[in-house]
Amino acid sequence: MSALSEWRAAISAPPAARAAQAQRHLDTLTKPAGSLGRLEELAQRLFALRGVPPAVAHPVVFTFAADHGVVAEGVSAYPASVTAQMVENFVRGGAAVNVLARQAGARIVVADFGVASAVGARGVVRCSLGPGTANMARGPAMTRAQAERGIELGGRLVDEALAAGADLVVTGDMGIGNTTAASAITAVMTTTPAASVTGRGTGVDEAGWRRKVDVVERALAANRPDASDPIDVLCKIGGFEIAGLVGVILAAAARSVPVALDGFVAGAAGLAAAALAPAAVHAMFASHRSAEPGHTVALRHLGLVPYLDLGLRLGEGTGGLLFVHLARAAALLYTEMATFKAAGVDGPA
Amino acid sequence: MSALSEWRAAISAPPAARAAQAQRHLDTLTKPAGSLGRLEELAQRLFALRGVPPAVAHPVVFTFAADHGVVAEGVSAYPASVTAQMVENFVRGGAAVNVLARQAGARIVVADFGVASAVGARGVVRCSLGPGTANMARGPAMTRAQAERGIELGGRLVDEALAAGADLVVTGDMGIGNTTAASAITAVMTTTPAASVTGRGTGVDEAGWRRKVDVVERALAANRPDASDPIDVLCKIGGFEIAGLVGVILAAAARSVPVALDGFVAGAAGLAAAALAPAAVHAMFASHRSAEPGHTVALRHLGLVPYLDLGLRLGEGTGGLLFVHLARAAALLYTEMATFKAAGVDGPA
Repeated sequence: MSALSEWRAAISAPPAARAAQAQRHLDTLTKPAGSLGRLEELAQRLFALRGVPPAVAHPVVFTFAADHGVVAEGVSAYPASVTAQMVENFVRGGAAVNVLARQAGARIVVADFGVASAVGARGVVRCSLGPGTANMARGPAMTRAQAERGIELGGRLVDEALAAGADLVVTGDMGIGNTTAASAITAVMTTTPAASVTGRGTGVDEAGWRRKVDVVERALAANRPDASDPIDVLCKIGGFEIAGLVGVILAAAARSVPVALDGFVAGAAGLAAAALAPAAVHAMFASHRSAEPGHTVALRHLGLVPYLDLGLRLGEGTGGLLFVHLARAAALLYTEMATFKAAGVDGPA
Repeated sequence: MSALSEWRAAISAPPAARAAQAQRHLDTLTKPAGSLGRLEELAQRLFALRGVPPAVAHPVVFTFAADHGVVAEGVSAYPASVTAQMVENFVRGGAAVNVLARQAGARIVVADFGVASAVGARGVVRCSLGPGTANMARGPAMTRAQAERGIELGGRLVDEALAAGADLVVTGDMGIGNTTAASAITAVMTTTPAASVTGRGTGVDEAGWRRKVDVVERALAANRPDASDPIDVLCKIGGFEIAGLVGVILAAAARSVPVALDGFVAGAAGLAAAALAPAAVHAMFASHRSAEPGHTVALRHLGLVPYLDLGLRLGEGTGGLLFVHLARAAALLYTEMATFKAAGVDGPA
């Protein structure tokens, strides 16, 4: 049995009674019932997932990098060289994801899932599936074997992190061109026109946006991905780092560990993961709503409501790391607040 | 010259060039321009306020407690005894604000601005203006001298905290009945009907809500507060802790220190502070949008857009403390991220 099959088999919805059990506990705490709003829903979901009082003590962000052959079509404001340069920046600690990981007390796992130019830096986990994907506007981005291998490699990294004590997983991505892949995946998996799920990415202008929509449409026409077969979708119009993130989500869900989805690229990975194992959504937390229009479509399809809405469109795991503070707050409130009884506080009159 | 006059005189808008200066710096950092969304706007505002790279190393939350005579009208789901009991809970560290302050590395200053029953606990700063306000449905909540004294006492606590190194101030409040006062203040200061700015508070039912709206209307009719005189508004339909928070906001703004407004009660204090010194809004940050409908009205009037929208309606400073993580993230990103040049990352093609 493959790792992917094992994870899929292990993923199930948490027992229905647990959410009510969590709410009963929350209602004993010294605050008006429901007054912590979505932090209560968040604490409920965290409790329901594992069946024990939640903790967010050891978060890990997986920032996976890869290049995209579709960049040849002129879909990005930045040259492909930036992917490798940013990986070096991650290793040196100078990127936004590093700053936010330090703040959140999160470990970063930077992995090369297929950066075109060699990434020599120490501290990068080598998971390369090749020197960037092929140009999906002209044919499949990768082989089916590569997509499956990417999922497995991503999930294995989660297994290692969980064995080392990680209690919250955050998805992160870096890949010039990867919002084009995310748009294509979101269009197929949610049956939405390309123009509705394609945004400005790193900041292309109006002409660049039209070109990007056209490229997504050509990629769909050239590949005819089968929406009922998420691996087919991934290999035809996905990305190496996106395959890796599908593995991250599935492996975390298989162990009932919460996984904070970052932005649009993570949302596309979430769509594929949910198609492979529908109950995986119970482990998924939509950190934030990205400025990319396709992200809103993806989250609606997944039935997830984002916790933050700050107009972020950076990726790397940055929005997921901001969410760590909210998840930790929910967990600490759940476990550390005094009850009405213990504190001698009167209930409603 | 009174402390209030000094603070008002010291409050001015930051130099207009500073926001652009901050944005020029943000645009040198290794990320697509603008991709950090509202965190960039937040970093800009923090820089503009002080003119130096922002830091959120020593936040302080001021949780001011007081009772409200208007509770006699049946406006709250909880008995007035809860105010004093929650103060004890704050001192013992069991309330939501304690949990979130520990998480955020914030110091808490708990002050008694007029709790009806004696608060004997050590660790409570004594600023009592009386054993709760008078019932505003029948006459003025307090004297003009009490309102002015409350502002001064609140501001003095900020002065002490700033002298000790505080770099971000968070407002917090506890007072059974205080959303009724906040509704009345918001109605007057924004010229909005009582029903549009009155919510469920700690959780009254439909009948309780109608009674609360009626009480606000009676308080306005009985007192005829003068919207052009914020002190008149505060003394007639305010609260002791609200007066204290007006002082917190003005003293912080006078020193160009950012002040994170918590929820609805803080919003009412913000309206009074902005009426006393319009440029104080440059120092105000709307942490979150409360579930109370009047809060949205107050923030719109202040021209502030909230950073979080989590359906919170607890007060105490809880939403402000969640915002501390975002403000700290903005400050750390501003100061710690590598530049394109230093990291050797290519710019847009």
